[in-house]
Amino acid sequence: MGKLIRDTVLPILDNEILRRLGDSAIINLEGGGHLAFTTDSYVISPLFFPGGDIGRLAVSGTVNDLAMAGARPLALSLGMILEEGFPMEELLRVLESVRATAREAGVEVVTGDTKVVRKGEADGLFLNTSGIGMVPPGIETSGKRVVAGDALLVSGPVGDHGIAVMIQREGLRIESPIKSDVAPLWALVERLLGLGEAVHFLRDPTRGGLASALNELAMSSAKGVELQETWIPVTPEVSSVCELLGLDPLYIACEGRCLAVVAGHRAQEALELLRGHPLGKQARIIGRVLEGPPGNVILRTAIGGSRLVQLPVGEQLPRIC
Amino acid sequence: MGKLIRDTVLPILDNEILRRLGDSAIINLEGGGHLAFTTDSYVISPLFFPGGDIGRLAVSGTVNDLAMAGARPLALSLGMILEEGFPMEELLRVLESVRATAREAGVEVVTGDTKVVRKGEADGLFLNTSGIGMVPPGIETSGKRVVAGDALLVSGPVGDHGIAVMIQREGLRIESPIKSDVAPLWALVERLLGLGEAVHFLRDPTRGGLASALNELAMSSAKGVELQETWIPVTPEVSSVCELLGLDPLYIACEGRCLAVVAGHRAQEALELLRGHPLGKQARIIGRVLEGPPGNVILRTAIGGSRLVQLPVGEQLPRIC
Repeated sequence: MGKLIRDTVLPILDNEILRRLGDSAIINLEGGGHLAFTTDSYVISPLFFPGGDIGRLAVSGTVNDLAMAGARPLALSLGMILEEGFPMEELLRVLESVRATAREAGVEVVTGDTKVVRKGEADGLFLNTSGIGMVPPGIETSGKRVVAGDALLVSGPVGDHGIAVMIQREGLRIESPIKSDVAPLWALVERLLGLGEAVHFLRDPTRGGLASALNELAMSSAKGVELQETWIPVTPEVSSVCELLGLDPLYIACEGRCLAVVAGHRAQEALELLRGHPLGKQARIIGRVLEGPPGNVILRTAIGGSRLVQLPVGEQLPRIC
Repeated sequence: MGKLIRDTVLPILDNEILRRLGDSAIINLEGGGHLAFTTDSYVISPLFFPGGDIGRLAVSGTVNDLAMAGARPLALSLGMILEEGFPMEELLRVLESVRATAREAGVEVVTGDTKVVRKGEADGLFLNTSGIGMVPPGIETSGKRVVAGDALLVSGPVGDHGIAVMIQREGLRIESPIKSDVAPLWALVERLLGLGEAVHFLRDPTRGGLASALNELAMSSAKGVELQETWIPVTPEVSSVCELLGLDPLYIACEGRCLAVVAGHRAQEALELLRGHPLGKQARIIGRVLEGPPGNVILRTAIGGSRLVQLPVGEQLPRIC
């Protein structure tokens, strides 16, 4: 998919804003102000999973794409494609969840569209949410602002979302209390943005997990990234399921976690700001930015070795976010 | 679908902006200015038809929803859901068409998302386009601004899009030169907005055709609408296909036409402004607004009678726009 987008979509639609490939596009308004604009389609299977559903996922995903651009969510759109015969009670559950999650994020769905296709022409329910938000003055989250010495923080344990969906979908007989972390993060990010220009980069580690987010950081900043394996928060439950199935939690999607890169001397403050919010209670400093090697993510392992954390090849778990 | 949206979606997501059910939501920015925001999913079949394709349709549809709110398009998003095995050369054709149509409309796709689902989980290609635009100061297009004495104009012949898609899809053996009218209308609307506050209401007659657009006008303004049958432009080709198949051109979708309601004393000027643009060469005045009966659309027929033009019941032609 990454290859499809890079090699096919981008060269055709090529323009300056799209080329940045951020989670949100940033548009400079004529009257001043920076508007963030983002879109995402959700084709997740199953639609309901421990800790969430496609409605909560869609709203959170779009709010988080805005938040990672430093933008306060202003309004959401909701596009629904329904397969004929889709159960009305499930539709109602999803819509209730959209409403509740939007309220939690302090935003409203202001425009929408519903299409119905015949049985067999879609898989139950697909959602698209687009969102717009305003970036407060002085805020810019971008790889270009990242410098050596910056600290890396993650707002909580990684991998819960992907593992929760997978256990549900594959009908794995794992007695596990693992719930998806899916949540809208604006309130958490707003706290962190109290540090102003000291916040250099934000990314939600969704598809491809923390490993992807860190590689995007390393590439967009042209810096090196150094991680301490033992500092990365992973719950014992996610850890054991990953061991059992031979998965690496660094590559598992989160939907309510944030990777933050802040100026090194503000790292402790950033940690306290995150921990002061319910969604950031288990935040951790996980590493730092180095001058090089540019584009590389190095993991210092528990036993004192080190290895390269590469971009995932292909999709480990399709239709999970 | 209308019932599903009114009875199920709206009560759950209820809020002031969504309740207006306009083609675009209008958001008042803190720093001043009015932002229009709209979304649409496209599940059309077939993907390519005489005069256009799903890419041109999606960009035009979203640009037109913005234009009908009086908004200059600022940026578009593009969400794609692909069925595994969808031919790459068709994807390239669609993307080229997205690019060309966006350029024609003076706007860019600034953010996007691509999802792939397995064979049988979608029907080829679904698109979602959302758009944002800025409404120039002093412009407001809304049923509330419509008054008795206003003139109704349509920017060109109606029904070409729906008939072109239907002939293609059903493999009808009709030797017909009918091409879809699909086109982005901002440049045309911009001319008309030279009349400023004299432009009271704009709507593109897509799903449900001119009949739906006129009923929305009558209901949102709580006025009566009077149409002159012989004034409504329909090409002889569309007219004969409709006769052959027992369809009423008033109910057939257009994708490059605009219904405009302007102050009665500016009707001639409006007509000239529309006719001065290639997309409005065949514009016509088609009727007027009356005090009542509120919510009713009355057609004065060629033979001197009159009949009520009602909202379409169900979908005459599914997956056409």
